[in-house]
Amino acid sequence: MTKINKLLIANRGEIALRVMRTAREMRIKTVAIFSEADRNALHVRYADEAVCVGPAPSSESYLKADAIIEVCRQLNVDAIHPGYGFLSENANFARMVRQAGLIFVGPSPEAIEIMGSKLAAKAAVAGYNIPMVPGTPSAITDRAEAKTISAQIGYPVLIKASAGGGGKGMRIVENDAEFDEQMDRAVSEALSAFGDGSVFIEKYVTSPRHVEIQVLGDQHGNIIHLFERECSVQRRHQKVVEEAPSAILTPEIRDAMGRAAVDVARACGYYGAGTVEFIVNDNLDFYFLEMNTRLQVEHPVTEQITGVDLVKQMIYVAEGKPLTIRQEDLQIKGHAVEVRVYAEDPANNFLPDVGTLDTYVRPQGNGVRVDDGFEQGMAIPIYYDPMIAKLITYGDSREEAIQKMIRAIDEYQISGVQTTLPFCRFVMEHPAFRSGQFDTGFVGNYFTPDVLTRKPDQTESQLAAVLAAYLLETSKPQSSGAAVPVTQQKSKWKMNRLG
Amino acid sequence: MTKINKLLIANRGEIALRVMRTAREMRIKTVAIFSEADRNALHVRYADEAVCVGPAPSSESYLKADAIIEVCRQLNVDAIHPGYGFLSENANFARMVRQAGLIFVGPSPEAIEIMGSKLAAKAAVAGYNIPMVPGTPSAITDRAEAKTISAQIGYPVLIKASAGGGGKGMRIVENDAEFDEQMDRAVSEALSAFGDGSVFIEKYVTSPRHVEIQVLGDQHGNIIHLFERECSVQRRHQKVVEEAPSAILTPEIRDAMGRAAVDVARACGYYGAGTVEFIVNDNLDFYFLEMNTRLQVEHPVTEQITGVDLVKQMIYVAEGKPLTIRQEDLQIKGHAVEVRVYAEDPANNFLPDVGTLDTYVRPQGNGVRVDDGFEQGMAIPIYYDPMIAKLITYGDSREEAIQKMIRAIDEYQISGVQTTLPFCRFVMEHPAFRSGQFDTGFVGNYFTPDVLTRKPDQTESQLAAVLAAYLLETSKPQSSGAAVPVTQQKSKWKMNRLG
Repeated sequence: MTKINKLLIANRGEIALRVMRTAREMRIKTVAIFSEADRNALHVRYADEAVCVGPAPSSESYLKADAIIEVCRQLNVDAIHPGYGFLSENANFARMVRQAGLIFVGPSPEAIEIMGSKLAAKAAVAGYNIPMVPGTPSAITDRAEAKTISAQIGYPVLIKASAGGGGKGMRIVENDAEFDEQMDRAVSEALSAFGDGSVFIEKYVTSPRHVEIQVLGDQHGNIIHLFERECSVQRRHQKVVEEAPSAILTPEIRDAMGRAAVDVARACGYYGAGTVEFIVNDNLDFYFLEMNTRLQVEHPVTEQITGVDLVKQMIYVAEGKPLTIRQEDLQIKGHAVEVRVYAEDPANNFLPDVGTLDTYVRPQGNGVRVDDGFEQGMAIPIYYDPMIAKLITYGDSREEAIQKMIRAIDEYQISGVQTTLPFCRFVMEHPAFRSGQFDTGFVGNYFTPDVLTRKPDQTESQLAAVLAAYLLETSKPQSSGAAVPVTQQKSKWKMNRLG
Repeated sequence: MTKINKLLIANRGEIALRVMRTAREMRIKTVAIFSEADRNALHVRYADEAVCVGPAPSSESYLKADAIIEVCRQLNVDAIHPGYGFLSENANFARMVRQAGLIFVGPSPEAIEIMGSKLAAKAAVAGYNIPMVPGTPSAITDRAEAKTISAQIGYPVLIKASAGGGGKGMRIVENDAEFDEQMDRAVSEALSAFGDGSVFIEKYVTSPRHVEIQVLGDQHGNIIHLFERECSVQRRHQKVVEEAPSAILTPEIRDAMGRAAVDVARACGYYGAGTVEFIVNDNLDFYFLEMNTRLQVEHPVTEQITGVDLVKQMIYVAEGKPLTIRQEDLQIKGHAVEVRVYAEDPANNFLPDVGTLDTYVRPQGNGVRVDDGFEQGMAIPIYYDPMIAKLITYGDSREEAIQKMIRAIDEYQISGVQTTLPFCRFVMEHPAFRSGQFDTGFVGNYFTPDVLTRKPDQTESQLAAVLAAYLLETSKPQSSGAAVPVTQQKSKWKMNRLG
């Protein structure tokens, strides 16, 4: 066991601050690195020491492994926390850190490598009984064989070009009758696009939900899971609303998924915090997708419902300590929702927006957590991910967490850039989300920019009727009142609302 | 059952905001009242409607019962939440509210009245087996009788002037030998001060701790308790640091105190949220002191460890709903600490400080809650309680909550006024507090202003040695390091620390 006394955070923004807060609570000194564009960033000011490692482009600063390790040498740093993104899933970096005699606060380079390759991951978990999306084990070109396999798997199936990507050579086949035509198209598209006509056949999961399991392992072979996060609400295939627990899992499925996730982690000798992603269909069948060998953006919802500080646990594990949390000690308490506040224009296809945070006032109060890296007056740098903040709410029930989220979104004051907040409020109010009946097609199915320009009251009253069916507590419509105000003043915070 | 659609908050500052946040989460419209001095206050801006009720002095605004009820009439308000202080424990006001056909979000006027009088409270709980500080049931003048009673109670005892107050005519008697002399002095002081020489004899509780139980009752006779809050760290007999649970209660004592508190509430037909205060000695004997018939300043620590939103429950109860929380459903999860951030100068006998919040940046992150009513640039009004904020931290263990508190205090940036933060940090670091072995004499026993001007590192290293004995996780002293910084930058946040 090696006590970590000084930790370098090889990251920026909210995650750098988040890691430093826990480090400070553990009385560990912190070292920030920063690019020239981040000279005034909050993570730089928060650290005990901070070092500029290069110009704005990530390749010249946050990704400069050599420079980062040199900083550690000069400042007597014991360990590096990579956050997420940047070097966090770079096995070579993890290896360099180890070779420099430093502690990498994360899994072994070998585990990163295995889970970084779909084929290696598949091979690693082969000995475990992990549910995978049914399909051909290897690429095929024979149409008859493909047809037989499809019938076995059951329609709909997906034909995917073996060499493919970007949807090219990908075909959904609904039934046996249309198989031949779709197979021909897939093969010919694959041939012309990649010069290789071989394809995979895979079960096509309808109404897929993205549900992931948080795992935590130590260097002594103990691995536990911390339940699931539901991350199906996505735009541009990127998560934007997450929650824990999932509204649809049964205790049995939760348990089965948890055990499968622990097996996946065991298959690659995993230690530290990691996330095993699954796709879940509307029968609650679940299939292993991939493992993220790092701290996840949406980890706070897990922290809220379990009371476990994941960064603290990562640091303990990196020091070589055995886990003190046993699986049977863990239980879900309450419900947490996270929305990601991006500088994006939801009315314009979620295009990143640039600008300065002219107004920036965070919501507060019971059950509200804001993880961010900005303050009023700061510009959103164009070089990096345009996430401004993660807004997390926590309540005794899902309904309470959602109501808190709506209140917190209304209280959040941001001007100067467009953000995803109005979109997230729309999600919170939407009957599909409220009822838990939604999948990764949420945005495509329900969202059009005009819903953001409707007047709030109109939206509210429309929704009220739908909500009445399943919301007992809040179903009664608000009295609009015929008040004779002595002094009436509309809340500034309310102006944020949907507009 | 009457659904509350519009709620007036007859209060200001952080508690007005706190109540409004929950109201908004319940989709209840909110009405703020304000004095002329509070025109730009956050609670005014937060409300859906806001009405000025008079000039700055409380007697001309926040205490103007008639004006407040008139506002309710004009704005079609259904209910009034009184917060704490001001009219919250005024039985006449509660009665006026009821007579105006409005809902008072609190107990009945009768319950307020009973618990507002020591004698009536004593009479009410007489039928229950509530432990009271042992003493004479009524005032006596006979020296022999007093001496006999004192021997029965057991020394030390307290002789208190029956007509007294302010410590006049109050004497501690350590043993039988000094009884006569002290009794004579008490009687003569009482005679000259109040013209009445009769006295009470009461057991003198040494090393007293202030521990209170949160209760919650509905209008159908159901009463539960939500465990205890430890509030022994006080300055000028006012709480400044609170926590839940208490570090010293055993499950058995907790249970016994909880049942006693429920009995006290039952004795006055209590409904709503209330607090039963006890004094606890170092044998963990507990004695009923009084009941506060309102929401308590320090209620957030209870919310953090139980997951119950007390304001939400108060509103449900006021609507006539039966409690849905059963005693057996409640359990303590984690640990919460609250420090009160007052505009006071701890180095100058905690004298209230006036000024403007030139810098005001709140701490953030996992497990940190700030309930306040200010923002940067605002002045602290001289007319009201100088509390700026309540800073609450929550962790899986007491140790984690305390470490988070230290981190959060260091992160809190306030300039323009002196605050209690440096004092609260001193408390958090103090071995007596850390070990849980402290009582209401904490400030008198340990605090001198010079501890705030010592250099942090000095204080830390001094404490480190003491802490090592019982802190396993964090006992290893910090390496001071001989780093050769490339760019070294001391955190702005750190400057806050103890200085």
